[in-house]
Amino acid sequence: MTEETTVKNLKIAYIGGGSRGWAWGLMSDLALERALSGQVALYDIDFAAAQANEVIGNHLQDHPDAVGRWRYEAVKTLPEALKGADFVIISILPGTFEEMRSDVHTPETYGVYQSVGDTVGPGGAVRALRSIPMFAEIAEAIRDHAPNAWVINYTNPMSVLTRTLYEVFPGIKAFGCCHEVFGTQELLTEMLQDMEGLTGVRRQDIEVNVLGINHFTWLDRASYRGTDLFPIYRAFAEKYAEEGFSAHGQKDHWMNNSFTSANRIHFDLFRRFGLIAAAGDRHLAEFMPNTWYLRSPEHVKQWKFGLTTVAWRIDNLMKLHERSRRLVAGEESFSLKSSGEEGIAMLRSLTGASAPMITNVNLPNRGQMASLPLNAVVETNAVFGADSVQPVLAGSLPEDINNLVTRHVYNQEAILKAAIRKDRDLAFRAFLNDPLLSGLTPDQAEELFATMLNNTKAYLPGWKL
Amino acid sequence: MTEETTVKNLKIAYIGGGSRGWAWGLMSDLALERALSGQVALYDIDFAAAQANEVIGNHLQDHPDAVGRWRYEAVKTLPEALKGADFVIISILPGTFEEMRSDVHTPETYGVYQSVGDTVGPGGAVRALRSIPMFAEIAEAIRDHAPNAWVINYTNPMSVLTRTLYEVFPGIKAFGCCHEVFGTQELLTEMLQDMEGLTGVRRQDIEVNVLGINHFTWLDRASYRGTDLFPIYRAFAEKYAEEGFSAHGQKDHWMNNSFTSANRIHFDLFRRFGLIAAAGDRHLAEFMPNTWYLRSPEHVKQWKFGLTTVAWRIDNLMKLHERSRRLVAGEESFSLKSSGEEGIAMLRSLTGASAPMITNVNLPNRGQMASLPLNAVVETNAVFGADSVQPVLAGSLPEDINNLVTRHVYNQEAILKAAIRKDRDLAFRAFLNDPLLSGLTPDQAEELFATMLNNTKAYLPGWKL
Amino acid sequence: MTEETTVKNLKIAYIGGGSRGWAWGLMSDLALERALSGQVALYDIDFAAAQANEVIGNHLQDHPDAVGRWRYEAVKTLPEALKGADFVIISILPGTFEEMRSDVHTPETYGVYQSVGDTVGPGGAVRALRSIPMFAEIAEAIRDHAPNAWVINYTNPMSVLTRTLYEVFPGIKAFGCCHEVFGTQELLTEMLQDMEGLTGVRRQDIEVNVLGINHFTWLDRASYRGTDLFPIYRAFAEKYAEEGFSAHGQKDHWMNNSFTSANRIHFDLFRRFGLIAAAGDRHLAEFMPNTWYLRSPEHVKQWKFGLTTVAWRIDNLMKLHERSRRLVAGEESFSLKSSGEEGIAMLRSLTGASAPMITNVNLPNRGQMASLPLNAVVETNAVFGADSVQPVLAGSLPEDINNLVTRHVYNQEAILKAAIRKDRDLAFRAFLNDPLLSGLTPDQAEELFATMLNNTKAYLPGWKL
Amino acid sequence: MTEETTVKNLKIAYIGGGSRGWAWGLMSDLALERALSGQVALYDIDFAAAQANEVIGNHLQDHPDAVGRWRYEAVKTLPEALKGADFVIISILPGTFEEMRSDVHTPETYGVYQSVGDTVGPGGAVRALRSIPMFAEIAEAIRDHAPNAWVINYTNPMSVLTRTLYEVFPGIKAFGCCHEVFGTQELLTEMLQDMEGLTGVRRQDIEVNVLGINHFTWLDRASYRGTDLFPIYRAFAEKYAEEGFSAHGQKDHWMNNSFTSANRIHFDLFRRFGLIAAAGDRHLAEFMPNTWYLRSPEHVKQWKFGLTTVAWRIDNLMKLHERSRRLVAGEESFSLKSSGEEGIAMLRSLTGASAPMITNVNLPNRGQMASLPLNAVVETNAVFGADSVQPVLAGSLPEDINNLVTRHVYNQEAILKAAIRKDRDLAFRAFLNDPLLSGLTPDQAEELFATMLNNTKAYLPGWKL
Repeated sequence: MTEETTVKNLKIAYIGGGSRGWAWGLMSDLALERALSGQVALYDIDFAAAQANEVIGNHLQDHPDAVGRWRYEAVKTLPEALKGADFVIISILPGTFEEMRSDVHTPETYGVYQSVGDTVGPGGAVRALRSIPMFAEIAEAIRDHAPNAWVINYTNPMSVLTRTLYEVFPGIKAFGCCHEVFGTQELLTEMLQDMEGLTGVRRQDIEVNVLGINHFTWLDRASYRGTDLFPIYRAFAEKYAEEGFSAHGQKDHWMNNSFTSANRIHFDLFRRFGLIAAAGDRHLAEFMPNTWYLRSPEHVKQWKFGLTTVAWRIDNLMKLHERSRRLVAGEESFSLKSSGEEGIAMLRSLTGASAPMITNVNLPNRGQMASLPLNAVVETNAVFGADSVQPVLAGSLPEDINNLVTRHVYNQEAILKAAIRKDRDLAFRAFLNDPLLSGLTPDQAEELFATMLNNTKAYLPGWKL
Repeated sequence: MTEETTVKNLKIAYIGGGSRGWAWGLMSDLALERALSGQVALYDIDFAAAQANEVIGNHLQDHPDAVGRWRYEAVKTLPEALKGADFVIISILPGTFEEMRSDVHTPETYGVYQSVGDTVGPGGAVRALRSIPMFAEIAEAIRDHAPNAWVINYTNPMSVLTRTLYEVFPGIKAFGCCHEVFGTQELLTEMLQDMEGLTGVRRQDIEVNVLGINHFTWLDRASYRGTDLFPIYRAFAEKYAEEGFSAHGQKDHWMNNSFTSANRIHFDLFRRFGLIAAAGDRHLAEFMPNTWYLRSPEHVKQWKFGLTTVAWRIDNLMKLHERSRRLVAGEESFSLKSSGEEGIAMLRSLTGASAPMITNVNLPNRGQMASLPLNAVVETNAVFGADSVQPVLAGSLPEDINNLVTRHVYNQEAILKAAIRKDRDLAFRAFLNDPLLSGLTPDQAEELFATMLNNTKAYLPGWKL
Repeated sequence: MTEETTVKNLKIAYIGGGSRGWAWGLMSDLALERALSGQVALYDIDFAAAQANEVIGNHLQDHPDAVGRWRYEAVKTLPEALKGADFVIISILPGTFEEMRSDVHTPETYGVYQSVGDTVGPGGAVRALRSIPMFAEIAEAIRDHAPNAWVINYTNPMSVLTRTLYEVFPGIKAFGCCHEVFGTQELLTEMLQDMEGLTGVRRQDIEVNVLGINHFTWLDRASYRGTDLFPIYRAFAEKYAEEGFSAHGQKDHWMNNSFTSANRIHFDLFRRFGLIAAAGDRHLAEFMPNTWYLRSPEHVKQWKFGLTTVAWRIDNLMKLHERSRRLVAGEESFSLKSSGEEGIAMLRSLTGASAPMITNVNLPNRGQMASLPLNAVVETNAVFGADSVQPVLAGSLPEDINNLVTRHVYNQEAILKAAIRKDRDLAFRAFLNDPLLSGLTPDQAEELFATMLNNTKAYLPGWKL
Repeated sequence: MTEETTVKNLKIAYIGGGSRGWAWGLMSDLALERALSGQVALYDIDFAAAQANEVIGNHLQDHPDAVGRWRYEAVKTLPEALKGADFVIISILPGTFEEMRSDVHTPETYGVYQSVGDTVGPGGAVRALRSIPMFAEIAEAIRDHAPNAWVINYTNPMSVLTRTLYEVFPGIKAFGCCHEVFGTQELLTEMLQDMEGLTGVRRQDIEVNVLGINHFTWLDRASYRGTDLFPIYRAFAEKYAEEGFSAHGQKDHWMNNSFTSANRIHFDLFRRFGLIAAAGDRHLAEFMPNTWYLRSPEHVKQWKFGLTTVAWRIDNLMKLHERSRRLVAGEESFSLKSSGEEGIAMLRSLTGASAPMITNVNLPNRGQMASLPLNAVVETNAVFGADSVQPVLAGSLPEDINNLVTRHVYNQEAILKAAIRKDRDLAFRAFLNDPLLSGLTPDQAEELFATMLNNTKAYLPGWKL
């Protein structure tokens, strides 16, 4: 034991460590963190990509602003990555952009539009069916090689994939992290500037109570230094209901920067339901019936948000490939800045390097949300302490919102069971029950489902399609 | 104490006692019952109708087949009816046929068709809003005048109205009775004849496990003398999937006799979900999205069931008025026969005149259905004993069916709260979330809701419409 | 499928099938049962005893009163017994009378007296530690060889042993049966004769609601043909509080015939707590602190019940051995009469040969007793139907009684965990917390525990003692 | 809205505001707090005492170290105190020292010794019976006059009195505060110095997970900057098991300064149960059977803790009276120093003047302790935020400890119900079930109970004694 609060010799296993984007953000955050040091094992089914990140990460040792000491190593197997790990980060792309193209764009043939297509809706359902076996495999590997490690999942669909980890290895210490609630906190800081002329408010100082599931989270309480923000938000939502309001905070986030919205859905949901929805408009739209916000591309434009195209993603990937090459070659270097994620802060609290912190997180429901089924993965605030994550009792959503959320919870439970059993019929019943498909007849939905499954069949071994 | 098992001097308070139909069925059943005797207080907002039934009921004393001794009396006030009552029967028509006409037919303007319109769907929602205050008043009267009486509710929408009784008077001893499950048991007896050549099987000998909510109940187990009926039903459903099968049992029921179906929805649901739905097709159709069975009148015909018209009900009422006149005048008399309801058998068990019986019933969820919210009114089997009704632990529905049921449960919870608080916005959100309306935009649904509320405004005192 | 309700070709596996007593009672009951027939595989670690019972059982084919057709066969292994079994009966003696002697009489050295010593108290705790591994082995064998069989456990300590079956094989269809509640129902029929002059009332016609755990069950409702028996019982308890009252029904029961009581504990508990305790006085006494009823042999005499001695049991066993010899040799034959157990009636309902029946039974708590921990084995009424046992929702015990019961529930949970983990420390903490030991210091209790464990060490393989 | 985080114009209602001790500690804490200001209404049934504290409190305005601006006013009625209050503090003495003398010392006649006598045991039970009506009255007054105020209860028996507030006014925002867990955190800091040579560790930096009920709380996790303290505590407990260890932190606390212990019970409980008990030895002893630590005064000395005498309390009160006189007269003044309580820090977080804080607190169980009954008041960590207290999910105690705790929980539930219904029989059954009385026969306990009730009869209006 030492009075020194620096924690040395940590081992992080990064599954999906060849990533261009998340991996670089993590490297940047680690380089800026003085209290922690150790090694990062990079595992990826694309080993070359992991090797590139090994080079890029180790370059950071020489960066003038880097204060954290981390050694990166690409490894060829999952057990090798996991052995001795204190933390496991999972951030993978399940399948390729070809499968994602099907997820997002095939339903358009039936008039079903999706703004993201990776959480719920037909795209989210099929992505889940494809990803769950991958996560089952990861969970087994963690059980066998790193049962005491803390596991941080960043992969979508986050709720059902984090749920999969617990289903396969009930003793796992896993949680899912997402920055969408932060975006709403930032919107509230912009609101304070716009409505109250208050500048310089930090997102972290907006106290909120978080309820719901990932990408469909709600706030029933928000305050700043003791001032209730709901009355201000009410006026704010009225003011910008038609015109919309674009938060500066969101614009700058690397992941969202071409994906901004004018928050009209935020405002519409507040005016209808009275609680603050706490995810981006693009995500929120997909949880509601398709008659609400996603009727057609024109309708989407009226609501002032964008439909992501996979074409854009592919194009963007090309740019990232080129940037990776330059980073490896030393032709370009990072300008270190915080990613805005809270992963590193969580690591500090989990290792005891910092005092406990409170933030929102995705965890199995053990009672923190009284109105949702036990064991489903829900998103609420939690206290991160030394080797400990404890959700706070968040209470319940009102009946009407709870109904909307519960529908997705049970759909995801059915999808999980269907994926594990390779039960096509059950999977279809969950698919069919998604609100975005409520305009299709069962026969139309069946056709669509068959097509989408066929497009992703490379990732459905053992299924009778 | 006596060894005699006849129970004398019972008092039954009949709320809605001017009814032409249910009341006569009850009179008939009571006249045929040797073990019980006493008086029936008939209360109705139409006092003349209650008076007519007083005459009709007392005529039965002279009927040659009548073995039960019952005295009928029309009373002018609810307290008078309730005072000293051992049992309270509630079977009322909430509003008139004009309101019912709006419930059933106004949504057709928006392409929304309903086969009954009294349980869920836009008609069920508005009927609930109208009826809940009536049941709140009844519950208060029972609390004040007959707190220890057993209360049997026959009125639709049964789940939410029975729920209302408990919400207002938590100590009430109330349950809701419905014969729809019996119809499915009868279908199974017909199946035994059709598929196995087995005749003479009584409905009561078909053992079933009942789960769900009223009119949307499911069987996950059915057997006859130890033989599992599921494999036979699977073959039966395949055999008649297209053509349909009409049960004789249903045809003869007085309430349903112009309302038969060919059970194609029964078969379709079984083939999709693997459990036996246990209500008539006309009810089941209304719980599913409108793309399934109620797309259009033509679509309904293909599914071989009927859309009830209120015109028929009005026409039928004329005939019942005339029959009432003749019965009062002694120009016609009952041919006493059992109504097929189990109300009297329940009375026997509740008074200790018979051994305990097991039947399905609607009660607040105290854990009998693990997958549905506590306190919501659910339908399962229960044991009726002396002064006691105890649900059996029915288990859970599978995730996919549970999801369909839960959606209606929370909708009804929201409607109850909205009716009590006179909260139009909350009521609309529940209305909008009904699966039959999933094809409408929020704006269309708002127009429809406004029209329907306006049509029933006489029964919404204190609301801001 | 057949209209015939006789169920043929059943296979019953009887574990402990060499028993002299229970086995003969079962043979007798089966011989008297017309609706069922088949074979009984007798398995016992004393194979010779099983062989004797094979002979005795098969003799019954020739008995003039025997209507059931059953073939008995002693088998040498558990898998052989289980293979193809429809029902498994478990009625074993865990250890020998030497271990039982220690269970019952060793604590007397410390002034701790037990009237039975097989359920709770120091004797029950040690008997559980010894038996749980046996039941774990049985559960594994059932999982592997007869996973769909219904399993009826008659062995004490019943709650924790039935709990063990579920802990080891969660999918088991097991329940525990006990006749103690029947004894209280019989006491109520005798009360009706004594207080009301009512003769000929059958035990089965006394309706009761049963709550609690085996041998510490309570009735919060009891009626006969609709008459509430509580006021009568109150007068009855007052009348016989000092003098006691001996039920004829109990006296004649083959198992209890030298073990009668005067029901003074029944009356005392009723006068103190207001509910009817529903097990024999000898059992009830052991669940209460030792200052209540078991202070000393003299104190026990005042309360008018008996302390069973193991010497009596050994002596009785000698007589049973001799009777077995005579039965095998054909020197004596059964006079067939019902044992008073309900096992056969349960078999009839479970096979569909009879209509569903309602009786009390020990099952894991799935919500049937709201106030006790989930999964603990509790005793309530249940509905036995075709291939189905469903507990009824029994409600809750009042706080004060619930407290007494909960203490034993958690003690048994701790004993189960200790037995499975071979955790002597945890076992001791549960032992020490038994109310019968509340007069000992921790050091005294430790000495006693060490001695008792040592006496039973042959049945504690792998323990560090 | 302002950026200023100082919160002005707060109103605190102090019930029991004539206190000499707690009141002065609070005044001192408020005077040292820069972020808050406002007024304190002092209400006490001893109005003169409240007036004295008004003078003493207002003197503090002139104290050179006082930075908080607070105005004190003695008020004559509870409604006057509550009107407009943002916070209500309840710290009363239920009855006089004469009643306390009976609570603590009367049981000694029966060989039952108590170290505090205000929480459980015979003294705690009778004190609860006397206090519950007072708290029922306070709860009604809060409901009527300050329903939105946050209510902080410092009065013992804390669990059952906080429970009373919620029973009477379910919408109350109340919690119970106690410093006993802090004492154990301080013991751990002393351990770090003794075992690891680590000085200067602040109590607040010891992270703990808290489970249980007030004065019988347990830690299943304790760490300092990421180091697990359990292995160190194990060695520490072994080292000082016989000799004992006196924490400096405890000695200096104003309330406990003559009440130190050597923590031998801490160490004994840890060695037996494996978790760290987190209250003072004097409290812990009273929750265990009397054979463990409280057999006799000599036995208590061996365990190295003290039996508080009421004589000492009376003597001490004389000194406080004299000090009060001097403070009023200005002959003496406070040396301002923190009381070590966290009340003011909670106020800061509740008003939004500080960031959210995490500390242990007594709240109704809404799921934060899975193994204890819902609604019982339990002690766990909670997050204090702006107008919000949310418990964290603390998990469950192991079966054996949970059993010890549950026994007291149900006893207190029974006492609450008995106090509200004035049900002497139920109260006696709870009294009798206390572990400290397990050596008495029911008759002896009845005598003792009668005597103790008689001694406190002035506070039991309406009871039939």
